[in-house]
Amino acid sequence: MTEFKSKIKTIEWQDTYSRMVDQTILPKKFEYVNITGGQQMYDAIKTMIVRGAPAIGVAGAHGVVLYAQELEKEHLTREEFIRRLIDRADYLITSRPTAVNLRWAVEQQKDLIKKSTSDIKGIVEELKLNGIKLENEDIEINKKIGDYGAEIVPKGATILTHCNAGALATVGYGTALGVVRSAFAKDNTIQVFADETRPRQQGARITTFELTMDGIPTTLISDGMGAYFMKKGMIDLVVVGADRIAANGDAANKIGTYSVAIAAKYHNIPFYIAAPLSTIDTSIKTGDEIVIEERSHEEVTHINGDWICAQGVNVINPGFDVTPHELIAGIITEKGILRPDYKKSIAEVFAK
Amino acid sequence: MTEFKSKIKTIEWQDTYSRMVDQTILPKKFEYVNITGGQQMYDAIKTMIVRGAPAIGVAGAHGVVLYAQELEKEHLTREEFIRRLIDRADYLITSRPTAVNLRWAVEQQKDLIKKSTSDIKGIVEELKLNGIKLENEDIEINKKIGDYGAEIVPKGATILTHCNAGALATVGYGTALGVVRSAFAKDNTIQVFADETRPRQQGARITTFELTMDGIPTTLISDGMGAYFMKKGMIDLVVVGADRIAANGDAANKIGTYSVAIAAKYHNIPFYIAAPLSTIDTSIKTGDEIVIEERSHEEVTHINGDWICAQGVNVINPGFDVTPHELIAGIITEKGILRPDYKKSIAEVFAK
Repeated sequence: MTEFKSKIKTIEWQDTYSRMVDQTILPKKFEYVNITGGQQMYDAIKTMIVRGAPAIGVAGAHGVVLYAQELEKEHLTREEFIRRLIDRADYLITSRPTAVNLRWAVEQQKDLIKKSTSDIKGIVEELKLNGIKLENEDIEINKKIGDYGAEIVPKGATILTHCNAGALATVGYGTALGVVRSAFAKDNTIQVFADETRPRQQGARITTFELTMDGIPTTLISDGMGAYFMKKGMIDLVVVGADRIAANGDAANKIGTYSVAIAAKYHNIPFYIAAPLSTIDTSIKTGDEIVIEERSHEEVTHINGDWICAQGVNVINPGFDVTPHELIAGIITEKGILRPDYKKSIAEVFAK
Repeated sequence: MTEFKSKIKTIEWQDTYSRMVDQTILPKKFEYVNITGGQQMYDAIKTMIVRGAPAIGVAGAHGVVLYAQELEKEHLTREEFIRRLIDRADYLITSRPTAVNLRWAVEQQKDLIKKSTSDIKGIVEELKLNGIKLENEDIEINKKIGDYGAEIVPKGATILTHCNAGALATVGYGTALGVVRSAFAKDNTIQVFADETRPRQQGARITTFELTMDGIPTTLISDGMGAYFMKKGMIDLVVVGADRIAANGDAANKIGTYSVAIAAKYHNIPFYIAAPLSTIDTSIKTGDEIVIEERSHEEVTHINGDWICAQGVNVINPGFDVTPHELIAGIITEKGILRPDYKKSIAEVFAK
């Protein structure tokens, strides 16, 4: 498989500090921020300089390393070093208390600290290596998703995507956009149509940004336009990410995804989900059990701080919707493409 | 039928001048502008203080009256008065040269001038009465559409609409929103879900404004959300306007309409078009013959003058899409609700 060299690495350990793309200023500016201390990492997570579940996880792991480096300089006893480092790791989790990946990655670092038999210097080194390992694992998973996905992209295809399941939502490479990158490495005549993805416009702000930066031809469309282009024969397949997938293949993703899936079905265009196996929650039988987060009404009523509608209008702002499995042609994972019947194919991939 | 008293009259003749809602400052401010001279009317049409085909037509008719009032004061011969008035009427048409209704209404005034046997004062009076007649005719048509449409709105229904086919797109009352107003007059437990309607956001800016002003409960949603609410059983029917309808019932309307129609079909929710018979162009056999206007890319890439995406991204911005007749449950007109087979029902209504 020809590997695609992306210009974007969302978060990366640099010898003694963590470097991340500042996602609060996109798409106006693309800048890296160097995070050199533990408290600075706490703030970066809290203020969403770094976002996207896998990237936040790695940020947490890096944060523990930064705290460890600071404590290393204080000439503490090994016992005192460990006690204070565990304290700070717990504090770091509170920067985004509901982020499952953050807790998971920090807990992994805490386990490493507790189980280590090394001296302080050795512990710092082990934490650093584990942070880098987590980084690489995420990218490796995405590249595998990309490579499996590239196989189902026809020559010269136009891929429609919704929201951002890209390098900037992960540590790098991306899931749905990982498929795009791997497909583009094989065939540079493919192109992408990116839904704006109201209300938060991640498609416009982030997807167009990262694909344009990587030199992949990208067309921005408003959310209502996809069906029009499908009818004109201008869309060959749809690939999107997922936030959570049930045991029967029902997939929760950004609001608006379901609408795209219905339009794809109507036009006989295959609709794919690209997501790591960690997104599949086999404890959930169907999408009906997935609770949909209701988000701030200002996301719908304001753009760039300005009212776009009548004041006093009602708003409902579901953050996600669930695409039922019968609309999904395949779920592209790091272990291959799962096909219907998903209940069976999902059970099988987890039994391996 | 209980008549709904709307607070909004988009354009209305006031004894010696034309009063119109300034649509350039909505939804931030609701203000009337008094147009007291012919050149001021030319500018109002050109700068889109007045918009929507029927309203522009009436504005043109009013404009001819304003010019006539000005020339009346110049003590010209009857012949000279007519010559100069026809000149100014022709100039008025150039304020929006592609607006069919503008040309149609101004030509009607020109015919009246040419055929009149009255003196100057009498001609001015006749032009004024004709302007008022055009005004009333549009509202009467919309009220008939509203009354027929109200019959198909179930008790307590939630109506989804896209874009603005309302009082502010017409002289008053509206077509799709005329149905809403008539239904609300019968049953004040109905409510509206309004699609934002990117890229130009007429749903957010205008529909939420005029319905809120008329006290009709309205919920603003982003364009991708409709299917989600349909699945949850929260939408009972869809009613939208149309820009052009072919002889087989295929209907062109604001981009995004087609996507809503597909989602409605998928959920078995009836999808209606509300439009006057003048929208039906029987010279067009199917929607395939309707040319879709490609609009400015800035509508997609900018909001309130600000970039929302990567610079250098491609854009395609079709202004309209065509909903094929097989997705349309009925076309609500001033002569009743047309039902499939539309080829037959449309031919019949025009044969009457």
